[in-house]
Formats: sequence, structure tokens, C-alpha cells
Amino acid sequence: MHEPSTVTPANLADALTALRDRPPLVQCLTNIVVAGWTANVLLAVGAAPAMVDNPHEAGEFATIAGGVLVNLGTPYDDTARAMHLAVAATKPAGTPWVLDPVAAGALAWRTSLAQQLMGEARPTIVRGNASEILALAGGSGGRGVESVDSPEAAAQVAKDLAEQQQSVIAVSGPTDHITDGERMVRLSNGHPWLTRVTGVGCALGALMAAFAAVVPDAVVAAAAATATLTVAADSAAQMSRGPGTFAVALLDELTCLEPAQLAERVRIS
Amino acid sequence: MHEPSTVTPANLADALTALRDRPPLVQCLTNIVVAGWTANVLLAVGAAPAMVDNPHEAGEFATIAGGVLVNLGTPYDDTARAMHLAVAATKPAGTPWVLDPVAAGALAWRTSLAQQLMGEARPTIVRGNASEILALAGGSGGRGVESVDSPEAAAQVAKDLAEQQQSVIAVSGPTDHITDGERMVRLSNGHPWLTRVTGVGCALGALMAAFAAVVPDAVVAAAAATATLTVAADSAAQMSRGPGTFAVALLDELTCLEPAQLAERVRIS
Amino acid sequence: MHEPSTVTPANLADALTALRDRPPLVQCLTNIVVAGWTANVLLAVGAAPAMVDNPHEAGEFATIAGGVLVNLGTPYDDTARAMHLAVAATKPAGTPWVLDPVAAGALAWRTSLAQQLMGEARPTIVRGNASEILALAGGSGGRGVESVDSPEAAAQVAKDLAEQQQSVIAVSGPTDHITDGERMVRLSNGHPWLTRVTGVGCALGALMAAFAAVVPDAVVAAAAATATLTVAADSAAQMSRGPGTFAVALLDELTCLEPAQLAERVRIS
Repeated sequence: MHEPSTVTPANLADALTALRDRPPLVQCLTNIVVAGWTANVLLAVGAAPAMVDNPHEAGEFATIAGGVLVNLGTPYDDTARAMHLAVAATKPAGTPWVLDPVAAGALAWRTSLAQQLMGEARPTIVRGNASEILALAGGSGGRGVESVDSPEAAAQVAKDLAEQQQSVIAVSGPTDHITDGERMVRLSNGHPWLTRVTGVGCALGALMAAFAAVVPDAVVAAAAATATLTVAADSAAQMSRGPGTFAVALLDELTCLEPAQLAERVRIS
Repeated sequence: MHEPSTVTPANLADALTALRDRPPLVQCLTNIVVAGWTANVLLAVGAAPAMVDNPHEAGEFATIAGGVLVNLGTPYDDTARAMHLAVAATKPAGTPWVLDPVAAGALAWRTSLAQQLMGEARPTIVRGNASEILALAGGSGGRGVESVDSPEAAAQVAKDLAEQQQSVIAVSGPTDHITDGERMVRLSNGHPWLTRVTGVGCALGALMAAFAAVVPDAVVAAAAATATLTVAADSAAQMSRGPGTFAVALLDELTCLEPAQLAERVRIS
Repeated sequence: MHEPSTVTPANLADALTALRDRPPLVQCLTNIVVAGWTANVLLAVGAAPAMVDNPHEAGEFATIAGGVLVNLGTPYDDTARAMHLAVAATKPAGTPWVLDPVAAGALAWRTSLAQQLMGEARPTIVRGNASEILALAGGSGGRGVESVDSPEAAAQVAKDLAEQQQSVIAVSGPTDHITDGERMVRLSNGHPWLTRVTGVGCALGALMAAFAAVVPDAVVAAAAATATLTVAADSAAQMSRGPGTFAVALLDELTCLEPAQLAERVRIS
């Protein structure tokens, strides 16, 4: 029924082991809403966050960071300049970078910014929800969102964009789809409270940059990040009363999660 | 003793039901301190936050948002421009907007900014503490703060500003006062720890924008937001050890709170 | 074995009593990652935070604040201008100010900014980790970091910078070192989870500005801030499962901590 997948639970566990063994330095050019939460998620899992997002330093830092996240949640002229410089610097330095095109399709300026950045250097991974990915794939934005509501339609759009961009595309949702145009990984851990905490998707993008810094296969990196976050969420939900306690427990679980548990609990296909 | 009030506990419960039935999209132009917390409060109660606060997109988005919050906590030239554009766009679009004039009266630049914004489009609701409201009413700022320390004096200043601005004025304090110049609603739920968590007042302004998106009567919207937050705070305080656990429990309680419980527990007069 | 210290546990307890008796207004020019967390730490301990960091108001506010924090976590052109204006205003106003030179030595622009600010007005306290302090002392930055890994080497660098700058220097680490060039205070409370929560060091800088507002001896102020945070952390760690619950419990403990407990539990030499 499913396409054959070369990504196994053991691959994901190995990726988490690699991250813990060699904690990556992750440069985040992200938004004012989730910057603190994103840093805490990275610290909890064992990575080292650095929110260097001004034009004077962003390019310089992208050459020494292990991975770079560019998140378009609250872009300004000043930080958008920093994004251009950081992305440009990843290319000669060979630094993997992740694009999180928040609200692409719904707002013209940032959609254009996302497209420009993708043109300046191929993103290693693009992470978004179905409508954001559709917008980047040249879909008709909000008008066409309904058409990707089914998981299979989202998967097809992701494949198209992966081929077009030569990037790994990760579509977040109740089932997460990750593809490089050939392989398609489906992950289905997680809990509805993930949608009641701001910045979970944004933090997932940062985790992908962290894993991409330590794992050469970007499909494995994106899948390991997704599995780590959502398997930890499964445990966190069991000990929580609502989204407040859940977000706090999620940080604890990200710290406690062992590679063997990740391999055991992940629902992958 | 009290003025007759046309706002009943049932009105507040109906407002919460309306918000849950039709989750409003709330555009927040707010500050770097509370942006994440504000988004989490909106998500917890059931609304959809969108922190679109750059000049390229703020006006465009104010025409599609259900409600707009403008909070002056950490204004910059860039975000102040976005505020002007968002406020201007609310007028033809008919989008309700809430002004939270943080520290008005204490600092000249933002006091002037608040007054300009009020002149550009009538705010649906202005929410602040007594001294901020006094400053907007043309009071002598810090010098006159002591004079509004009594709840009745604060109520009078709120009435004056409501008549002058044709806006609903909400004065936060141990007792919250909400008035449109004719009606005066007093609410007295809450807990002292609300003053030990940053951004509770800021999040209250955002909740008012959320309720104003689903309830036509702005007095009811402001009262429903206040009652929802403070009734949830009553429950949260009972299960907390201090302001840290209290803030977390408050998010849980905002999610759990049912309209019937709100009507039963609110202390309104 | 240890140098004689004039700072006693009783001094630290008295400082906490003073802070609770006269809650200081602390202006924070800090970064987008930790602004909310810093405000919550200040509120929890009993101080009043005000994040006034735009060029129109920062200088004006530095004349009325009890203490000023300048933290270089995410500087932009706009907020860097505000930092220059705030620091310049502290001098005639006599407002104590704390410099937290985040990532100084690793990034050229902010290292230069830190040095400029120190030249414009003598900071009351400079707080950083060993490599940041070394960079400000004219060390060779990243290249020389290894050389200050030993506590004694860090202490020596701190002494040198204290003499050079006529500021109190606080070097954070498993053991915290605080010196004015003559006295050297060592504090050794705390827990490894402090390094898994973003902004603990940043919040410590803000606490130092709060204590400096109420205590004339800046060595005592820096030591009281450090002891308050790390003694509270000892208690918080005992009731936590990981960094998420730890950060929440830390806020509770900062509120609950009594001066007598601080004096009893602090490990000072």
C-alpha cells in the first residue's frame, strides 16, 4: 500500500544519538513570538541555539553554525536583510539550512521573500503546513488550500515541490509527510494539543536544522526531528491537563527521550 | 448603590460559546516581551493568533482579521508604522480594534503615538490601568496618578474617556471597570499572582480583540474577555505554588473553562 | 586558602530584604529570546521590569529607572541606538547599569558595540561567561577560550578586567566569580538544568540591575542576585523532572525565597 521507505526507526534513533554526541550549534533567524520557546526546545533536546538575526552578523555566523533556520513568522526589513545574508553565506560554507515559510500564500510580501530566499540558495529542508507548501509550489494560495486538505493531496504537492526545488519537503499535519521527491516518509505520532501551543511548528523547523547539522541525509534529519518532537509529545500529553502543562512537560520529555525509546514508539511508514 | 447593568453572566457565557463556535483570527501588533504568551493565551481559549506587525503586511492583514490588537509595550519606528497602517485599514474594513496604551503618560513618544492612533480610527475598546487611561483622557500623567487610585475615581475617568472617544474603556485593577459612557460593568474575579506574571494585561487586550470579533456589543466583548481570564485565574491559583505554576495552570484553565462555569463563577455588578 | 571576603550571607539576605521593601524599577534593553522570561524572573523576585528599548524613550527612561540592563543577545541598529542613549543617560542620572555582553568575542559587531558602551559610561557590573569576559579584557576571543576553562584562570581574567574598567565583573559558571579587582566572591549553588533553560544568564544580569538599584555596594548586588537565583534553583531542581518543570518551579521559588533561607543555603567563599 505504502511506498517503500528507506528510513527506519533505527535511522532515527541513530540521528538522536548523533545529536546528543555532537551538540550542533543552530543559528535561528526566527520570529519574536517563538524565539524563547524555540531556544528552549533546542536546549531540551541537547542542541545549542544562537539567535543571530541582524544584518551585521547573520552572514558571518552562518559560516560557523552547524545548521541555520530561517523562519518567516515576523519578518521586518532589518531581519529580512539578515535572512538574505545568512542564506547567501550557507552556500559557500555548505551549511544546511531550513526554510519555514510561515503564512506563505496568505501574505504577499513574505511569500515573495520566501521565493527569493529559495532562489538564492537551495534550502536543505522546507517545512510548512499544506497550504504554505502549496503556495511555494506555485499553487493559488488561499484559494487552493482546500484542495490539499487530504493527506494524499498534500503528499503529492510536497513531491512536486521537492523535485522542483531539489529540497526535502516536510508537510506538518496529523500525519507528517517528508519527501525528497523519491522517498516519502509518513509519521503519525503527536497530540491535538500540539496545535494549542504557539510555535510548535516553528520549533520543529529549528529541530530539523539541528538534525541536519549532524546527519547527512536530509530526509532522515527531517524525520528524526519530527519523530523526536511528536514521540515526546505523546508522553507529555499523558501527564498534562491542558496546553499549559503540556508545553512544559514536552520540554522535560525532549530531555528524557532516549534513542531506543524513539525507535520503539515512532509510528513510521 | 451600583448603576444598573445590562450585561449579565448569561451574556458572557454566550460570548464564550460564540468564540468557541467561530474561532476568530486575531491580528496582534504587540511587544517582544509578551508576544509568545499572548499567542498561547489566545490559542488556549480557542482563538487563532497572527502576529503580523510589519509595515508591508499589517494593513493588508487588518482587512481579513476578525479583530486587531495594537499594544504599545515595545514600539519601534518600524512597528509603529505598521500600527498606523493596521489601524487605518480597520476603518473601511470595519474590523474591531483594541488599543492597549502600555505606559502611556509615563513616556512621551508612545503617549503621542497612542493619541495619533486613536485619532486615525476610533478604537472599539481601549484597555489599560487607571494611570494609562487618565493619561489618554488628558490627565497630567504620572503627576495625577495618585488621584485615580480609588476605584470610583478610575470609573469616572473611564466614563469621561468613553464619552470623549466613543470607545469602550476597560480599566484593569483588583476590580475591573468597563464602560461605554452609559453602562458601567464591574468585575471582581482574579488573584494577586496576575500581577506577578508578565503580560497578563497585554493578553487581556488580545482576548478583548478576540471577543470583539464574535460579539457585536463591545461592552460585552470586553467584559467576557475579562471574566474569562479572571475566572480561569481563580481556578489556576488554587492549584499553584507561585507565579510560575500559576501562569501554566492559567493556560490549562482557559482551555477547560466552560461557558456555564463562567456564568456561575463570575462576580459581576 | 581563599582570599578573605567581606561579603557575608547576612549581606545577601539584607539585599533581598531591601529589594522586597523597595521594589526597584528595572529598565531592560534585552533580546527577543528572553524578554518575557526576564520580566517574569524580575516580577517573581519582587522587582518591576520595564522593557523600554527604543531610541525615542530609552534615554529618558534611564533617568527614572532604578537600574538599567543592557544585554547584547539580539542587537539591531534600532535597539543599539537605544542602548547608546540609555547608557549615556545613566551617567548624569547616576543610575547603575549592567552590561551583559552575550557572545562577545565570537561576533565582531557586538564585541565592538560592547566596548563602545563601556567607553561611554562605566558599567556598574559586567556579567558574562568566561570567554565573553576574556574577550572584553582584550583576550584573543574564541582562540583563547580554552585558557580560561579553569575557575582560577577565569577569576584572574575577571580581576584584570575589573581593575581596567573600574567595574564589578561577574563570571558565571559552575562556580560564579564576582570581583571588584580587590575582593573576590565565589558562589557555588545551582544545578546543571540552569544551562538547559534559555536566558538564565540573561535574567541573572537583570537581577543584578535590580539589586544594584537598592544596594550601594555592587559586589554585594551582583552576589545577592547570583545567590538568589542559584539558591532558588537548588530548590526548584528538587521538585522537577526536567528543564521545563524546572524553569516553572524556579519562578515559584524566586517568589517564595525568604532572606533567612538565602543566608542559610548560600554556598559562599
